[in-house]
Amino acid sequence: MDAEVIAVGSELLTPHRLDTNSLFLTDQLNALGVEVTGKCVVGDDRARLAAAITAALGRSGIILITGGLGPTEDDVTRDAVGLALGRGQTYNPEIFAAILERFRRMGRAVAENNRRQAMVLDGAEVLPNPNGTAPGQWLTQAGRHVILLPGPPKELEAMFHAQCLPRLLRVLPPMALRTLTFRVAGMAESDLDHRIAPAYTEYTDVATTVLAGAGDITVHLRARAADAAYAERRIAELGAKVEAILGDRIYSRNGDSLEIVVGDLLRGRGETVSVAESCTGGLVAERLTSVPGASDYFLGGFLTYTDAIKARLLGVAEELLREHTAVSEPVAAAMAAGARERAGSTWAVSVTGVAGPAGGTEATPVGTVFIGIAGPSGASVQRFRYIPDRERVRMLAAQSALDLLRRALI
Amino acid sequence: MDAEVIAVGSELLTPHRLDTNSLFLTDQLNALGVEVTGKCVVGDDRARLAAAITAALGRSGIILITGGLGPTEDDVTRDAVGLALGRGQTYNPEIFAAILERFRRMGRAVAENNRRQAMVLDGAEVLPNPNGTAPGQWLTQAGRHVILLPGPPKELEAMFHAQCLPRLLRVLPPMALRTLTFRVAGMAESDLDHRIAPAYTEYTDVATTVLAGAGDITVHLRARAADAAYAERRIAELGAKVEAILGDRIYSRNGDSLEIVVGDLLRGRGETVSVAESCTGGLVAERLTSVPGASDYFLGGFLTYTDAIKARLLGVAEELLREHTAVSEPVAAAMAAGARERAGSTWAVSVTGVAGPAGGTEATPVGTVFIGIAGPSGASVQRFRYIPDRERVRMLAAQSALDLLRRALI
Repeated sequence: MDAEVIAVGSELLTPHRLDTNSLFLTDQLNALGVEVTGKCVVGDDRARLAAAITAALGRSGIILITGGLGPTEDDVTRDAVGLALGRGQTYNPEIFAAILERFRRMGRAVAENNRRQAMVLDGAEVLPNPNGTAPGQWLTQAGRHVILLPGPPKELEAMFHAQCLPRLLRVLPPMALRTLTFRVAGMAESDLDHRIAPAYTEYTDVATTVLAGAGDITVHLRARAADAAYAERRIAELGAKVEAILGDRIYSRNGDSLEIVVGDLLRGRGETVSVAESCTGGLVAERLTSVPGASDYFLGGFLTYTDAIKARLLGVAEELLREHTAVSEPVAAAMAAGARERAGSTWAVSVTGVAGPAGGTEATPVGTVFIGIAGPSGASVQRFRYIPDRERVRMLAAQSALDLLRRALI
Repeated sequence: MDAEVIAVGSELLTPHRLDTNSLFLTDQLNALGVEVTGKCVVGDDRARLAAAITAALGRSGIILITGGLGPTEDDVTRDAVGLALGRGQTYNPEIFAAILERFRRMGRAVAENNRRQAMVLDGAEVLPNPNGTAPGQWLTQAGRHVILLPGPPKELEAMFHAQCLPRLLRVLPPMALRTLTFRVAGMAESDLDHRIAPAYTEYTDVATTVLAGAGDITVHLRARAADAAYAERRIAELGAKVEAILGDRIYSRNGDSLEIVVGDLLRGRGETVSVAESCTGGLVAERLTSVPGASDYFLGGFLTYTDAIKARLLGVAEELLREHTAVSEPVAAAMAAGARERAGSTWAVSVTGVAGPAGGTEATPVGTVFIGIAGPSGASVQRFRYIPDRERVRMLAAQSALDLLRRALI
């Protein structure tokens, strides 16, 4: 059985908003063995939405319609489904009572138009919405399912889990799904794909998706079969091959981010870290501290944007800065060592580079970054050369800094 | 004349990818007075795409189809348009010669399947693609336009500017568009909307869009009319009313971000800034340094996650920390003063708070943040209380810190 998603709302047809609910729904449906074969966005237009629903019903067994369930004249989903399926609507006083109660608890007045949210399509099951006012609705007609869900993601996601999943499990044939995720740092997407393609192209019954961010690649493997043991075996085999090829470039097997992995390593060893950042301007620390509980291992750091500040805050020798310039191996080493000593941390990471657009020289062009790691057994520095784009240089340098720290810790 | 956008590609029907080209196209089309009345995503399926094109042609005058122009069997857009419009395709040797030349320059071999990219629909104008191999195509049938564009955003955007804009200007009635943008910090969306709604609801011929991010709201005004002077007058009138209502909460009238505005103020005064961040962990500095040329005014800073480090790096008195705790007005003031003195900057911004999820107390619950500004005439501190969500607390605190600095500078 295939599914389609129809997102309703004129705001989704402006240059400012995208329908993201469909990503959540696709992920959930795929996990049940259902493919999403089409998505569309329709404005607040009854006739047009009704036509889109009719067309989708001619193709797919599950139609999910998100949004357009609110109280205003612009909320047209109920009416459009009624038009498409030839069903009337009936006022449900219990739903309106629940809406009244919700408003009362929040100390707000109820506008009369909220009665529209209590209109139920004839024959529909009502899907309660504990996180908002508009309930969802579920209709089945000629073996096809039309599901009306609210637009706000928190309401939609909670309703999907509580109301739609159990109903879908009843109507779908049982399928086992097994997944594996690898996260990889320090590789280009084309290089990674070139290496693992010979393995995954042999496994046509395992879906392999390679998704690349800035210096960060996620490989998703997904095996779906009626026989759970078979899905398990296929994904384990391919997973082992991918692991053998990528080795310690894989930093996570459960989807955790690099900053979570580094934090867990530090916490596990009872060690601490500080940073000394120049061109990344706080990005490394910002990522480390984005993790709840980062205060277990992150002590603090130094943002040293100018030469004078590198000397003053980190004790980088002025001769070193004069002789080698701030973007150099010895300065990166001195920054890391200075941060480690002054913060009193087990480890320190330093980043100094030319993010651009200005500041490049022939010897150190824009995109050059030195990353230093200081630890109990001394400091080491690695030179990187990125494509000269300020934002990318900063993102990639922060990623490399965290990955070098990870490698120092394993 | 209305438009629809059809994005082609099975990868856009996974949980991992969204069609974002339609946002760019919508923005461009809106500026020409064309509304986008529908969007859809279709997988790599000839018959289904042909049906979507046929349906769109029954409703709209401009159909933009993005993606599916590559060399493989999965690239079905040319075939589907041929099916929908009843047109054949002819091999164009000049296009293939250009593809060969492009591969030669890049030192790559040309796979035979690239000939598919040289197939042109009968009667189509070819839209050259200087940034990739697949050219676009433009067909007109019964006064309706079907435009085939490549999927990669850089190729699509360049082709739209160079090839589609001039053609659209020839076929569309002339319309003047005038826009105004205000960016606002430190207000809740509902509060802002409540205040300005009485003004903008009077101007039904000016489209007003209110978009909210974390502590950051953008108000777009857009007037479109055949008469340019009329559009100009209407938007100026409404703009003046909005300005009078929002006052100095407006930080930008040209779309510039808060970090750009703050940087320009500092540069204009020939002054410098440093930071002392605790719970934001580098986020304030990261935003300040994301702006090219930030080294003109950003000197550096201190990330002080623990009490010991606040004392050691910033000279915050240990009695102060003991007596008031790290999340307090006097500590925020001492952090800002310490950073200003130790970095030698004109200004310093400090942030200390409880981002959560742990660490809250009755006196300072999760979400409590103190922000200090130290300047030539001393230090001041403001207390904030945000909804207790770690990521939101950090984002909102960084936004408030930059906005307090802006207010100190104006």
